[in-house]
Amino acid sequence: MEESDRYQRGWNKLKEIDGEVGERVVDSLKDIAPDFARYLIEFPFGDIYSRPGLGRKEREIAVAAALTAMGNAAPQLKVHTQAALNRGSSEQEIVEVVMQMAVYAGPPAALNGLFVARETFAERQTGSD
Amino acid sequence: MEESDRYQRGWNKLKEIDGEVGERVVDSLKDIAPDFARYLIEFPFGDIYSRPGLGRKEREIAVAAALTAMGNAAPQLKVHTQAALNRGSSEQEIVEVVMQMAVYAGPPAALNGLFVARETFAERQTGSD
Amino acid sequence: MEESDRYQRGWNKLKEIDGEVGERVVDSLKDIAPDFARYLIEFPFGDIYSRPGLGRKEREIAVAAALTAMGNAAPQLKVHTQAALNRGSSEQEIVEVVMQMAVYAGPPAALNGLFVARETFAERQTGSD
Amino acid sequence: MEESDRYQRGWNKLKEIDGEVGERVVDSLKDIAPDFARYLIEFPFGDIYSRPGLGRKEREIAVAAALTAMGNAAPQLKVHTQAALNRGSSEQEIVEVVMQMAVYAGPPAALNGLFVARETFAERQTGSD
Amino acid sequence: MEESDRYQRGWNKLKEIDGEVGERVVDSLKDIAPDFARYLIEFPFGDIYSRPGLGRKEREIAVAAALTAMGNAAPQLKVHTQAALNRGSSEQEIVEVVMQMAVYAGPPAALNGLFVARETFAERQTGSD
Amino acid sequence: MEESDRYQRGWNKLKEIDGEVGERVVDSLKDIAPDFARYLIEFPFGDIYSRPGLGRKEREIAVAAALTAMGNAAPQLKVHTQAALNRGSSEQEIVEVVMQMAVYAGPPAALNGLFVARETFAERQTGSD
Repeated sequence: MEESDRYQRGWNKLKEIDGEVGERVVDSLKDIAPDFARYLIEFPFGDIYSRPGLGRKEREIAVAAALTAMGNAAPQLKVHTQAALNRGSSEQEIVEVVMQMAVYAGPPAALNGLFVARETFAERQTGSD
Repeated sequence: MEESDRYQRGWNKLKEIDGEVGERVVDSLKDIAPDFARYLIEFPFGDIYSRPGLGRKEREIAVAAALTAMGNAAPQLKVHTQAALNRGSSEQEIVEVVMQMAVYAGPPAALNGLFVARETFAERQTGSD
Repeated sequence: MEESDRYQRGWNKLKEIDGEVGERVVDSLKDIAPDFARYLIEFPFGDIYSRPGLGRKEREIAVAAALTAMGNAAPQLKVHTQAALNRGSSEQEIVEVVMQMAVYAGPPAALNGLFVARETFAERQTGSD
Repeated sequence: MEESDRYQRGWNKLKEIDGEVGERVVDSLKDIAPDFARYLIEFPFGDIYSRPGLGRKEREIAVAAALTAMGNAAPQLKVHTQAALNRGSSEQEIVEVVMQMAVYAGPPAALNGLFVARETFAERQTGSD
Repeated sequence: MEESDRYQRGWNKLKEIDGEVGERVVDSLKDIAPDFARYLIEFPFGDIYSRPGLGRKEREIAVAAALTAMGNAAPQLKVHTQAALNRGSSEQEIVEVVMQMAVYAGPPAALNGLFVARETFAERQTGSD
Repeated sequence: MEESDRYQRGWNKLKEIDGEVGERVVDSLKDIAPDFARYLIEFPFGDIYSRPGLGRKEREIAVAAALTAMGNAAPQLKVHTQAALNRGSSEQEIVEVVMQMAVYAGPPAALNGLFVARETFAERQTGSD
């Protein structure tokens, strides 16, 4: 396989999952660390997200769960509650995933995750980004 | 609702998900903190795990993802890779969930999660607990 | 015991400890996850905070210490430095609890905790919330 | 104040709180990082633990709470559940402190803390170290 | 050695490494915890940063790496990307240190570190604080 | 560039840095997640570790610092204290890097790091792996 295939596949996947936010992140790295922008496209999106073997919906559930439990990545959780909606989860399913984290990472992690999810759901209704 | 319903529902759910390991944990709390044994049955299992609104398979994927990403709960990850198998995920799906965590929590967290998953899969083959 | 007793006891305890901030958190969950609002009242406040066996002052010291050491929960630490004052600790005792955390979680965690405590103490003087 | 006073005060405090375990830790640093052994005596014990302004019992409650919540320091939590007993907490109070952590760091952190506490209580009964 | 030597040495080192930001932090503690201001000067700066045995540049690389990987200390990372520049690292070397963290703490930690570094580099160009 | 170049470069770098331990990790993934073995070679070693722009010694200092501060990766810290020795740091420099972490991640993280370093230094003396 050519590197360029991997990059292209990753770029498509990034746009599919993270949308405009993902493109902005990549752009913002252009001046300081263009290679890192390339790695982000190639490894997370070209390699991992592009794998078969797990459904799109299930993969996003795994990501939303992890970001809620880790508790230090609110902006990324926002992107991925949106991605989870786009990839087959209902709002109720996302709320359930986030609440489940209270059992492992503690009630505050779930609470913060619910506030992020509410923001995502509200923007979706009003059509803002 | 009576408290006793919540306890009974939680106890059944605990046995269904964590199996004998769960029962042993509860037993081991009897002498030092019997109320905490009850809370573990009532809140995580009676309240959260018993909720509708998210499929059994999806709920376990969320838990396995979070425990891999948090990275400090190998024994619990072991229980939940087993639970994930019991509740509809294939070995390959679990491997995908764990590998996905490399993107958020870093390659070492995923690597450690893969070693736990391999142990679970091996015991299942030989029929040991 | 009836569930409703547990809820009522938790609600009273939440108001006693977290004050208006606690009520606002519960209200803000009403539209997205009303059950989680109920769980927050029942498990942390109805079950855990309502237990005898540890003094009110000591319980709040434990919470303020943990939130300082965990280092990712500044808003909650603020609520609980206020609660610690309300429940019998002096400002100096709270400062000591926070400084003690430098020994385990590192000087920056203690430093951030001190800044949160200073904010609480200042608002108290001026009577703002 | 002379540095030597600070060292002596710290050394006495270390022995008082951590007992033989503390002395062994300091000894074990002698060959690789003797200055770090000195810093451990001077800063945590000579400076922080020696401060007035917070009761001995309350200070140990803060430490046991933090170590339970941080969740990555089982050996140190063991030392400090013992220290908490020595400094005025009952077994029941320690159990309450540890259970309280379920509310912030999640049920598994509290569960692991309870297992450490049980070990401390058992050794105390049999008179082993 | 007199305590006062240690304080003076730490104060000089603090100004050398953290610059005005460090002085402001110390000042801001004067009303709430003046002893902690003193400890910050004495232990991190008077004891640790003042040690021989590791080059100034290498010591700052270690600090910038750790703060990036820990991921919960953006303001401090900012101070230390500046300090790293002052103490012999080029912008490119700092970028490399931060990108290296993707391998251990995950791509998001590195990404956040790059954004902090970019801010530092930009302010340096414009001569702002 | 061909993917195969990236893999080969990563494989050489892995052997250079992690030695036999690295090869064993890769081998152990062959049955459960062979693609992840490939990613580990390609991304951390083929992409990141192979970059110019930061000296070998400095890169390993960054890694040892981060692993000490993160505090949940003792086996990896062991590999990288060895790698740091191989790549130009003296034992004393490694000890300094680890002690510096007390300032950010707290004394216990540095203490645990020192114990890992001591083990590495001892094995080196006796020639065991």
